[in-house]
Amino acid sequence: MSSTGDIQALIDMMARLPGLGPRSARRAVLHMIRKRALLLTPLADQMHRVAASVRECATCGNLGSTDRCDICLSEKRANGELCVVEDVADLWAMERSGVFRGRYHVLGGTLSALDAIGPEELRIPRLLDRIAPEGITEVILALNATVDGQTTAHYIADQLEGRVMLTSLAQGVPIGGELDYLDDGTITAALRARKQL
Amino acid sequence: MSSTGDIQALIDMMARLPGLGPRSARRAVLHMIRKRALLLTPLADQMHRVAASVRECATCGNLGSTDRCDICLSEKRANGELCVVEDVADLWAMERSGVFRGRYHVLGGTLSALDAIGPEELRIPRLLDRIAPEGITEVILALNATVDGQTTAHYIADQLEGRVMLTSLAQGVPIGGELDYLDDGTITAALRARKQL
Ligand SMILES: [Zn+2]
Ligand SMILES: [Zn+2]
Repeated sequence: MSSTGDIQALIDMMARLPGLGPRSARRAVLHMIRKRALLLTPLADQMHRVAASVRECATCGNLGSTDRCDICLSEKRANGELCVVEDVADLWAMERSGVFRGRYHVLGGTLSALDAIGPEELRIPRLLDRIAPEGITEVILALNATVDGQTTAHYIADQLEGRVMLTSLAQGVPIGGELDYLDDGTITAALRARKQL
Repeated sequence: MSSTGDIQALIDMMARLPGLGPRSARRAVLHMIRKRALLLTPLADQMHRVAASVRECATCGNLGSTDRCDICLSEKRANGELCVVEDVADLWAMERSGVFRGRYHVLGGTLSALDAIGPEELRIPRLLDRIAPEGITEVILALNATVDGQTTAHYIADQLEGRVMLTSLAQGVPIGGELDYLDDGTITAALRARKQL
């Protein structure tokens, strides 16, 4: 390689990010070097800031700057509805649609026999513990329409059967679709038309 | 937005990189936060290292860690051949093919009437100054097969007419194609079959 070791090391690290390959990592790094003062240094500073400040909410798994996230801290969001999602990207997608006014629970993945991920590896025990103290009356299972997502939804539904109303996103989520890929309108429609399990 | 201001600021900066949009920037940032110790902090450190160490070669415009790049410093590369490219990504693409053993000259763009980019905005005067002192006998115009790339090649060819042998990459570069998108074999074939202008 003609690029110096430092540049190549940076390209290799960037290429490990999802959605980037070696070629797009090279383009991104060259772009950043060209805009060193405007982009490279501020971006590095911001990464350090995020690395130092971001916490996982102890209650729901969302990201924030304190041990409990803004949504868990807001009394306005305590309306008895709890939306269960696989990861933070899905929570952000729900929030962008603006239609859900309750709280969230981020599982941190899905059950997977293949990858040996059981309930204890996810935030499922913590979910079951939240129902009574927080006065949850409805749990919306907003999991991806994948095999693992639906397996996980059924497992959680079994655990909560008879304790709360259980619903899932309905109309609008395409087969095999992932929430984070959907537009806001589709998410809004899916939530409005949610059906009881 | 439910993500904290710090995270959102990082996403916005990442989304400005070529090849990334808002959604892929969100995915990349979440991935980095998950791998904070392994990826986010080391990546930020490496960006600072590159921002502090990388220099543009005063002779050819390549990137390196000193005022003259490794290729310009290597006497082995002083074979009388000078390969003119638009940007550093193109130089890297040429080097990956491994077939060119001379030196480079990175223009830093192309002439463009639309963007008011003339010879003085590029490294063209510096190119003309290199010919005699470095004993250049052949200038290979390895510019992209775009309108601006070919306009620039013709302009340089006019300036150097009669002073050196002028060649261009021939077979293998598709119409409208950009060097950095080509595989190594195509670049090798194009260089081997280069034709005199
Ligand atoms: Zn929370
Ligand atoms: Zn150089």
